[in-house]
Amino acid sequence: MNTPLTNQPIRVGVLGFGGLGQAAAKLLSSKREMILVAVADQNGYAYSTESLNTQACITTYQNQGTIGHLEAFGTLSNNSIQDLIQVTGDTVDGYFLALPNLPNDFIPSVAKEFIQAGWKGVLVDAIKRTSAVEQLLSMQDELQAAGITYMTGCGATPGLLTAAAALAAQSYAEIHNVVITFGVGIANWEAYRATVREDIGHMPGYSVEAARAMTDAEVEALLDQTNGVLTLENMEHADDVMLEVAGICSRDRVTVGGVVDTRNPKKPLSTNVKITGRTFEGKISTHTFTLGDETSMAANVCGPAFGYLKAAQELRQRGISGLFTAAEIMPKFVK
Amino acid sequence: MNTPLTNQPIRVGVLGFGGLGQAAAKLLSSKREMILVAVADQNGYAYSTESLNTQACITTYQNQGTIGHLEAFGTLSNNSIQDLIQVTGDTVDGYFLALPNLPNDFIPSVAKEFIQAGWKGVLVDAIKRTSAVEQLLSMQDELQAAGITYMTGCGATPGLLTAAAALAAQSYAEIHNVVITFGVGIANWEAYRATVREDIGHMPGYSVEAARAMTDAEVEALLDQTNGVLTLENMEHADDVMLEVAGICSRDRVTVGGVVDTRNPKKPLSTNVKITGRTFEGKISTHTFTLGDETSMAANVCGPAFGYLKAAQELRQRGISGLFTAAEIMPKFVK
Repeated sequence: MNTPLTNQPIRVGVLGFGGLGQAAAKLLSSKREMILVAVADQNGYAYSTESLNTQACITTYQNQGTIGHLEAFGTLSNNSIQDLIQVTGDTVDGYFLALPNLPNDFIPSVAKEFIQAGWKGVLVDAIKRTSAVEQLLSMQDELQAAGITYMTGCGATPGLLTAAAALAAQSYAEIHNVVITFGVGIANWEAYRATVREDIGHMPGYSVEAARAMTDAEVEALLDQTNGVLTLENMEHADDVMLEVAGICSRDRVTVGGVVDTRNPKKPLSTNVKITGRTFEGKISTHTFTLGDETSMAANVCGPAFGYLKAAQELRQRGISGLFTAAEIMPKFVK
Repeated sequence: MNTPLTNQPIRVGVLGFGGLGQAAAKLLSSKREMILVAVADQNGYAYSTESLNTQACITTYQNQGTIGHLEAFGTLSNNSIQDLIQVTGDTVDGYFLALPNLPNDFIPSVAKEFIQAGWKGVLVDAIKRTSAVEQLLSMQDELQAAGITYMTGCGATPGLLTAAAALAAQSYAEIHNVVITFGVGIANWEAYRATVREDIGHMPGYSVEAARAMTDAEVEALLDQTNGVLTLENMEHADDVMLEVAGICSRDRVTVGGVVDTRNPKKPLSTNVKITGRTFEGKISTHTFTLGDETSMAANVCGPAFGYLKAAQELRQRGISGLFTAAEIMPKFVK
């Protein structure tokens, strides 16, 4: 039953304060069951024993370049994550790693910092790439020994759509393929610089490193050539390894692609996942899970991420630590 | 991670051997991770320390009226469930309660028999009605104290579709409504007598008791009037209480209806659940999960039921007992 094991709100930190981190902070501001108490970006961090004001955080970051300048609560730091862990210790229950993961081992390296600091609690990421999740999978024993409950791949894809695939798979004796196709519309790519660069890194002829090295003007020039639309196929998304680890199907049966319109908030197509398999009676069929077009990337990533954070907190309260993926655990609805 | 806590196959019993129980036995016959070792019907039971042959069970039941006549493994009994528990004890890890639940407290009364026998293990039902799930919810403490991990509402609706609604809800700050519409096509209603009677019990002007008292000829006559089609609205389905208990929305926001064609295996419409809500950004939208038309009721009920049984077994191995619903736990894929 879903009765909370304790009635205390969960004290949450957000690491990374770009488009995703800011959306996460906005989402948290309407929740009773979670309180935003800490934020870190590349150049500083902010922490309050009570709670941080989301709007003040966003204004400070946008006007002054780092949350470290937040009045009364901010501190400038070149080791903001380490310093924040050191200062706050176990007064923060869990963190959402809203980090762009460039380079590809950045999020695993942050997880290692938590382990090294002797910190105990829950961590959630919305990581995208298979190779990054593989690095985390190799840390399963370390995380468990450290008393950290870590949920990986908890955004939209991987995340919500991967979990929908794992659920849909139940009707079948064998899964033939899982096809994820996403549509993203953003009015202005500059609000999601890191995400758009990661998308470009998945395009034919580009690498994540090459995309990361592009100037804003170079990104603009590329987008001008495609009328602002990025078409992505056979992306390296961790949905594949997550469904394999969950025992659903081998990773080569999972494909992810999508269309991103960087100049229009309307989605170019409805994001969906199609799960095709054979039932025990020998019938071949396809279940489909489709996201409503009016839901933003921010809603479909941050909503699930905090749902998984709540689920992780319940596991932790039951004494369960280690690494889990979004395909294995049902996220809990956060009020 | 989804590494099994033990590598032993799960030794499964099926209680009830009508259409649903027989489908469950067929499904199990192709699994490596589960073995069918026990079956009970109203007039007898069968048990093997190794495994039961599905086809022999079905032939015996269909030709002789009870599994109690199964050669070498069958026993006739008027208290088949109690006797089976007594004889097998903890050599059966878990049971799927493939029981029609007429009267409405039948499944809760079976759960009480397991508690009274001092049995420990996992139980899964594919119960339909809200009031039946409410009775089980009131047994939460008893089940926990008994060391039983009980998963309720683990069929299609409630079950797979309820879980899909709980998952889809993560994108939203508030859920406005959850609408489940199912289409069922069965070639011959006589293969699912109990299920069809339960559906009739949900129709305007009928009650479960009245439907139960109908002779086969009376059911035939009713179906003749509607050309074999049953249209069901505002059904008392436990999806509502399950989503309420999981904290997703109040039960009055959940509705279940459907169309059952009892003379045609083709579904009259695609079974789906629509989840409408408001995102943290204030947008109203609808996610949709649609089942492939070629998947049968048997595949969509028995597949999830065993997926939840495997998940329950993992919880039990972690020392977690008590009552859970399909909306709270991610089912595990059974190989």
